[in-house]
Amino acid sequence: MKKEMAAVRALTFDVFGTVVDWRGSVINAGQALKNASARKVDWAKFADRWRMEGYRDAIARANREGPAWTRVDDLHLRKLRELVGDFGLADLSDAQILELNRVWHRLTPWPDSVAGLQRLRKRLIVSTLSNGDVALLTNMAKHSGLPWDCILSAELVGNYKPMPVVYRKAAEWLGLQPSQVMMVAAHTGDLAAARKEGFQTALVKRPLEYGDVAKADLIAEPWMDVVAEDMNDLADKLGC
Amino acid sequence: MKKEMAAVRALTFDVFGTVVDWRGSVINAGQALKNASARKVDWAKFADRWRMEGYRDAIARANREGPAWTRVDDLHLRKLRELVGDFGLADLSDAQILELNRVWHRLTPWPDSVAGLQRLRKRLIVSTLSNGDVALLTNMAKHSGLPWDCILSAELVGNYKPMPVVYRKAAEWLGLQPSQVMMVAAHTGDLAAARKEGFQTALVKRPLEYGDVAKADLIAEPWMDVVAEDMNDLADKLGC
Repeated sequence: MKKEMAAVRALTFDVFGTVVDWRGSVINAGQALKNASARKVDWAKFADRWRMEGYRDAIARANREGPAWTRVDDLHLRKLRELVGDFGLADLSDAQILELNRVWHRLTPWPDSVAGLQRLRKRLIVSTLSNGDVALLTNMAKHSGLPWDCILSAELVGNYKPMPVVYRKAAEWLGLQPSQVMMVAAHTGDLAAARKEGFQTALVKRPLEYGDVAKADLIAEPWMDVVAEDMNDLADKLGC
Repeated sequence: MKKEMAAVRALTFDVFGTVVDWRGSVINAGQALKNASARKVDWAKFADRWRMEGYRDAIARANREGPAWTRVDDLHLRKLRELVGDFGLADLSDAQILELNRVWHRLTPWPDSVAGLQRLRKRLIVSTLSNGDVALLTNMAKHSGLPWDCILSAELVGNYKPMPVVYRKAAEWLGLQPSQVMMVAAHTGDLAAARKEGFQTALVKRPLEYGDVAKADLIAEPWMDVVAEDMNDLADKLGC
């Protein structure tokens, strides 16, 4: 292990895509609906539009246009109401729509996530560092058995990743120097932003996050401190 | 169970004194020191001054004099350096002083705390809501096996309890109405402040917190929703 890596005391994890499979979970939730209209929907297309337009684009806009915070739960709901129209889901009740929006509180972990986190937390502090709301992350952990030591969220800062202040405040709240914290994500942009604030970085490859391997961030950049195939591999590489 | 109590979705816990025995832990840490000077110290007196002057008075002053935030870790250290002089602990090295200050990260739970929390968390979200720093609370949970779903701290708000904003932000971050959250504390003042913000309240009696039963808050006020003998009794009374 490199000397710098031995100094790591806490890991901060991106959650959507890195720890949990949002796409598979949304597809499953859609396919489980009993409504007549739901049977005609391409749920993979639905999931991709929900994520890309409802979350990614909304957050990029908020970060571009200046300090703005809307709970990710509310961003999801806004886009969901639009998609219900676009995909002809007219027979969904309002209660069903609100319930479907809660799927983001119950996303399924990748098969290695819980076991890998259990290993990592024996020696290191494991925390979320997600744009998801505190409540969403807490509910998800409880639902899926994700053994976090601490729930840190961009909501606590009032700015979304990759704004620098989110990483800075996380290190401060963990009571550590940024160099003692390692950001873990399946997304190069998140890692690059954390690195600018002095964090160490670990890429965890998630080739299936977007259903299409070509869309995943799988390239090991020379500045990354660790590149791991999954959470167990990360535990191996960090000596846990 | 009263109808209002059935609506509770999350419990927010005061930590020092309610969940962990700060006084016994500080006394033990002092008595474990091998230094010659340490053998002559009345560690119970030391613990009481550290807590009352270093924490309680400092926080009351900050809340009285306007918005001010100093990490509780730093408040503790400031007072510790003074006490080292007052109690004639001249042979303590600076490393030993810093290490002694970390005793607040390793406080011992009351005998019922871990088991009670394990029961409560099966049905409810269990979170800290303490003036202790996020890092302090996270380290303590890891050290003592306190199974929190979520670490909420006054540090995230930048104001100490019993300032109203601390309770308001906690309910917001939990994604709940204040009436769906129950504050759990051994201190009437903490509960009264939470109640003003619309929280439900549970007193957990800790007759030994200050070493002297007469100093503990043991009186059931009519406005308290639950009065419990310990965390297992709280779990019984909440049907967990």
